[in-house]
Amino acid sequence: MPHLRLEYSANLEEKADIAAVCAAAHQAILATGIFELGAPRVRAFSAPHYAIADRHAENAFVDMVFRLGAGRSGEEKKRTGEAIMTAVAAALAPLLAEPHFALSLEVVEIDPDLSWKMNSMHARLRGK
Amino acid sequence: MPHLRLEYSANLEEKADIAAVCAAAHQAILATGIFELGAPRVRAFSAPHYAIADRHAENAFVDMVFRLGAGRSGEEKKRTGEAIMTAVAAALAPLLAEPHFALSLEVVEIDPDLSWKMNSMHARLRGK
Amino acid sequence: MPHLRLEYSANLEEKADIAAVCAAAHQAILATGIFELGAPRVRAFSAPHYAIADRHAENAFVDMVFRLGAGRSGEEKKRTGEAIMTAVAAALAPLLAEPHFALSLEVVEIDPDLSWKMNSMHARLRGK
Repeated sequence: MPHLRLEYSANLEEKADIAAVCAAAHQAILATGIFELGAPRVRAFSAPHYAIADRHAENAFVDMVFRLGAGRSGEEKKRTGEAIMTAVAAALAPLLAEPHFALSLEVVEIDPDLSWKMNSMHARLRGK
Repeated sequence: MPHLRLEYSANLEEKADIAAVCAAAHQAILATGIFELGAPRVRAFSAPHYAIADRHAENAFVDMVFRLGAGRSGEEKKRTGEAIMTAVAAALAPLLAEPHFALSLEVVEIDPDLSWKMNSMHARLRGK
Repeated sequence: MPHLRLEYSANLEEKADIAAVCAAAHQAILATGIFELGAPRVRAFSAPHYAIADRHAENAFVDMVFRLGAGRSGEEKKRTGEAIMTAVAAALAPLLAEPHFALSLEVVEIDPDLSWKMNSMHARLRGK
């Protein structure tokens, strides 16, 4: 159950295509070959209130947390994180070229003993 | 301080009663008998942008993280997680019966040394 | 990369100035002297659906998670948490004086081996 949550300052709604960022991250996750098609859930939440760095009105951020099930190696986790970061940085390159933007990502493993899941998409997608 | 955060794809606003899901989870948390009345804070956030599995337009998800204070046993944490999952799965049964939905939950303990809390409801509710 | 996420019940939009709460927390973070100017990202998300304590209509909450990079001592983490909690409690004092409000904070360290960051603000702000 790979989950990618993006949080972003609401001023990015006008400056970036967040749906396209989600799509790029989703593609990067699947392209690793580590996760099955029915699994990735990428989503983004806009923060209506924020206070960033020196509080310049142009300041903006995207912060991501990728949570994945146990069982992947440290190398697989690093590789997936790098793939997501690379894809999202490319999608947001114009923002990174200006002095008002911060992008970040953390990868976190889900505790297998204290997690539960139900997924009605797998039956439709497995074997496709 | 038991906190349940639900994240869901915005397309569920039309297909599910998220307020009722919150109410069902809240009731399940209190019914465990482990938490006091003034404590549970269940809340749900709608993601306006998302990319799920094969990106079929009907695809939707609810992902939950339950955070609770230290001091409960592993058995109590498992039992609470199962109770929340069961209650929410029942409230969303129609979605789980169709091939476009994923539901997940993780239980996480809050670090007692690095957390703070103030609660003006306890004085009103304790002894009730 | 210090990140402060606030989550709050949507009924606070009318009872509190959440932008001012973000500003107060942001100032408290910088006043610790531990973080550089280009770093803090404070943001707040409103939960449209929630179920709190005894579900009295006046019940409301603010829950915060502060995530910071590795390398700070336990004392520095405690001190930063206390500073944030104190600043936000002061900003929300009227709510804490009534029997319908809960405020909480957890401080969490980001895994240095599984995190990535890019920040185009530092070049502008360092040396200022």
